Amino acid sequence: MRSTHDAFHVAVPTHNLDEAVRFYVFGLGAKLARRYDDRVTFDFFGDQLVCHLDESAVPDGEPAAYPRHFGVTFARAEDFDRLLRLVEHRKLSVLSGPDTRFEGTAEQHRTIFLADPSNNVLEFKHYEDPRLQY
Amino acid sequence: MRSTHDAFHVAVPTHNLDEAVRFYVFGLGAKLARRYDDRVTFDFFGDQLVCHLDESAVPDGEPAAYPRHFGVTFARAEDFDRLLRLVEHRKLSVLSGPDTRFEGTAEQHRTIFLADPSNNVLEFKHYEDPRLQY
Amino acid sequence: MRSTHDAFHVAVPTHNLDEAVRFYVFGLGAKLARRYDDRVTFDFFGDQLVCHLDESAVPDGEPAAYPRHFGVTFARAEDFDRLLRLVEHRKLSVLSGPDTRFEGTAEQHRTIFLADPSNNVLEFKHYEDPRLQY
Amino acid sequence: MRSTHDAFHVAVPTHNLDEAVRFYVFGLGAKLARRYDDRVTFDFFGDQLVCHLDESAVPDGEPAAYPRHFGVTFARAEDFDRLLRLVEHRKLSVLSGPDTRFEGTAEQHRTIFLADPSNNVLEFKHYEDPRLQY
Amino acid sequence: MRSTHDAFHVAVPTHNLDEAVRFYVFGLGAKLARRYDDRVTFDFFGDQLVCHLDESAVPDGEPAAYPRHFGVTFARAEDFDRLLRLVEHRKLSVLSGPDTRFEGTAEQHRTIFLADPSNNVLEFKHYEDPRLQY
Amino acid sequence: MRSTHDAFHVAVPTHNLDEAVRFYVFGLGAKLARRYDDRVTFDFFGDQLVCHLDESAVPDGEPAAYPRHFGVTFARAEDFDRLLRLVEHRKLSVLSGPDTRFEGTAEQHRTIFLADPSNNVLEFKHYEDPRLQY
Amino acid sequence: MRSTHDAFHVAVPTHNLDEAVRFYVFGLGAKLARRYDDRVTFDFFGDQLVCHLDESAVPDGEPAAYPRHFGVTFARAEDFDRLLRLVEHRKLSVLSGPDTRFEGTAEQHRTIFLADPSNNVLEFKHYEDPRLQY
Amino acid sequence: MRSTHDAFHVAVPTHNLDEAVRFYVFGLGAKLARRYDDRVTFDFFGDQLVCHLDESAVPDGEPAAYPRHFGVTFARAEDFDRLLRLVEHRKLSVLSGPDTRFEGTAEQHRTIFLADPSNNVLEFKHYEDPRLQY
Repeated sequence: MRSTHDAFHVAVPTHNLDEAVRFYVFGLGAKLARRYDDRVTFDFFGDQLVCHLDESAVPDGEPAAYPRHFGVTFARAEDFDRLLRLVEHRKLSVLSGPDTRFEGTAEQHRTIFLADPSNNVLEFKHYEDPRLQY
Repeated sequence: MRSTHDAFHVAVPTHNLDEAVRFYVFGLGAKLARRYDDRVTFDFFGDQLVCHLDESAVPDGEPAAYPRHFGVTFARAEDFDRLLRLVEHRKLSVLSGPDTRFEGTAEQHRTIFLADPSNNVLEFKHYEDPRLQY
Repeated sequence: MRSTHDAFHVAVPTHNLDEAVRFYVFGLGAKLARRYDDRVTFDFFGDQLVCHLDESAVPDGEPAAYPRHFGVTFARAEDFDRLLRLVEHRKLSVLSGPDTRFEGTAEQHRTIFLADPSNNVLEFKHYEDPRLQY
Repeated sequence: MRSTHDAFHVAVPTHNLDEAVRFYVFGLGAKLARRYDDRVTFDFFGDQLVCHLDESAVPDGEPAAYPRHFGVTFARAEDFDRLLRLVEHRKLSVLSGPDTRFEGTAEQHRTIFLADPSNNVLEFKHYEDPRLQY
Repeated sequence: MRSTHDAFHVAVPTHNLDEAVRFYVFGLGAKLARRYDDRVTFDFFGDQLVCHLDESAVPDGEPAAYPRHFGVTFARAEDFDRLLRLVEHRKLSVLSGPDTRFEGTAEQHRTIFLADPSNNVLEFKHYEDPRLQY
Repeated sequence: MRSTHDAFHVAVPTHNLDEAVRFYVFGLGAKLARRYDDRVTFDFFGDQLVCHLDESAVPDGEPAAYPRHFGVTFARAEDFDRLLRLVEHRKLSVLSGPDTRFEGTAEQHRTIFLADPSNNVLEFKHYEDPRLQY
Repeated sequence: MRSTHDAFHVAVPTHNLDEAVRFYVFGLGAKLARRYDDRVTFDFFGDQLVCHLDESAVPDGEPAAYPRHFGVTFARAEDFDRLLRLVEHRKLSVLSGPDTRFEGTAEQHRTIFLADPSNNVLEFKHYEDPRLQY
Repeated sequence: MRSTHDAFHVAVPTHNLDEAVRFYVFGLGAKLARRYDDRVTFDFFGDQLVCHLDESAVPDGEPAAYPRHFGVTFARAEDFDRLLRLVEHRKLSVLSGPDTRFEGTAEQHRTIFLADPSNNVLEFKHYEDPRLQY
């Protein structure tokens, strides 16, 4: 069972801390928690995202959606819809989607892929049957 | 606020699905949720981990702890201790730690780094002051 | 994360304890918790409001909505609607609204401003996207 | 009953947005949610704090603890203690306390008062008997 | 705040333990928890009801709805409706209602009064605005 | 299962509304919710208590603890202890106890009986094994 | 009250561990938790199911729905509907139903019976009135 | 994730409904929910147990602990201890234990086996590491 108090933690590289703040806080609506010279930490949908400064992380070409990405699987369809509206309102750049995956199966879900300024890929999802979201 | 129903989602490469199952289920105590030819999905401490088959992910040398890793920040010290005991009982290979980071500051925390069979790096943490865990 | 057990605490001046009780309990539906000679405390929508007796707080002209005010951001639209009905049923005096703010943006929300008998200003809100309510 | 989803909302003046961020985020451990030219919003212990730019709010002399202040009443003694440690670690300036108030009565509680850079006063409390915290 | 673990406790007289079981368990759907020679205890909508054997409690005439009665205020309208259907399906004897009380005010609510075999009076309610249910 | 949102409701007679407020709010720490000419309502430990004005309810002699009384069964021993301290600090008049009932059995519990100014009897309890509190 | 942390535990025989995994994980969407030579354990809708290897458990004829079976009573109709869709999508073999039981009474509920590869019988239910689901 | 509202459901045979009530309600502290001519239903530690009348279920010899049994895995050690005390206080007949299983491994747990009057076997458990209880 997912506890309400434990937080997932994911760390990714960023070539520019300010751009990371702009994308995650003023774009995606994450909250800035702490900032150091070499990293910035966010409350990202309730979990912890850390962007580590890594000058080699300058984006180069189209990001690849697979295999590495991270994001949130919303329990309720309306929260996925809210994310789509946010993406539209704030003109966040979309890598692909929204699409429906595994259509016509029990694990059918909607999904959208975004990319951050350092080409880290994010995926947001919603499953018809939340019990199958794992 | 972290909702109890939304699940974090992280996807990483694996060069071998069976080894991923061995490490995550029989090692770390995650639960196997779904398995396809090209991926396996886990209930990983309540969130969703997907290991995508990627033959180029054969581990090569020592994994780097930074910048990419993922894991769990436990709200309670006793759950971090349980993770340490699991690592010891099941002889999981440790990349570094357990260590104390940011010692003597408000954001002081304990941490341990592990690596999975494809050199994906995992970090588990516990903060003295859970409010500062972001 | 907002814990269910920690309570926000706000203290404001009042020029008359009885009028404060009349407004907050018999008007807004807060509950009277404790009363002393120099203050009265309320369970105000689950948080603690204290009105300190301050004879200089006699209202003088129209209260200013900015910068000082306090209130509640409802998670659900229906609770904001209930507050509007209460204001109407009990003929509470409205400073401004209900209005829609930041219209057409992701942080769009409805809001209403009231004033208590000592011209302390209250704001009640509801965001389309509760994740952006901070 | 305090719902887990409704957020308290408090707005105060600040003479300098950057100083507000420095105090609330890098000092008190609040999280920066949104920033505009005339205001900055925080997730402050789970509730919403807004600092509105108000050039007349330049601090002038010692702030007065009464009647206006705001803060958090912690349900658990250990969370009050963590706040005290944070204040010490980060050398936040203390207006008064920690003290014990209403000693020897059922409503006995510990309290500490701080001031932000614009002399807005904050109070953090813990009651022996949480049922009497209102 | 109503804690999920504390239980309300109410004790009433009954002239016949078997009739009490018949009414509360097989009628109202409470659950029998313990039975002694002189009392029977129930999990009554999550709280504890005890019927103490008291031979003087033989019902005598129509029970009076005021001032003594006890029951449940449902947070959701659908749970009040389910109680009405139960009363109908199981032909429980109704003292008065369902009625609407305080109509056209903020504290408007629906209510129904029942009587148990020893003329103890029960009231079930639902408020339009659950915040005003106290 | 006791839902967190449904409230128990109990109504009792009082010969004097002001005395009821004094006892329940300034004595037991309940919160005053609403007041009418013929009744006063309280948030009593999270549930609703209504005292109906009934001039025949003037107390006459020692109240009888059985069969009629109401109160709270605390899930945690420390909350029962806090109630005992409140009774002592505020010098509330005790009818009997604190005592241990059903000693040496699985349903062993501590209990204290109080009486309000109209001789309505209150019981507060704590069971060694909270599963047996019904 | 059903605690969110305690797990129900049920153990049944299976003549073949691989078939059990196929049915429970890839069919019903349970999650594989642990596997030993003589048993496999599942997170089955949040509770623990253990299938013990028992070569005498080879299915023989039609399984009997009564008296032995186990399953889940869903609190919400939509979760029962999702289970029906899963059964259809994944072509799980149905023993009987979906049917409506106790029709026209307060305890009316929908139900479906399935059988696992070793003829252990499963029942899934939803009650009109969840309070009567026991 | 185990939802707080969905209930596990298990049905077993009994040769005598009265004995089932005696064992489950007056012995184990389950609550009687409904009773029909051919079955009795219980709120068993928050889940639903149904005992179906089956005259062939007369116990015959020592019950076998494997493969069929059911029970509860307590999240907290103190709740397992309370069950042990209940067994002792009420002199319930023990099939085996309390024992420690899988000693010295991460999945170490304490366990006790009981038998009901129809030789249905019950197991109660507590794991050192609740995350591994599945």
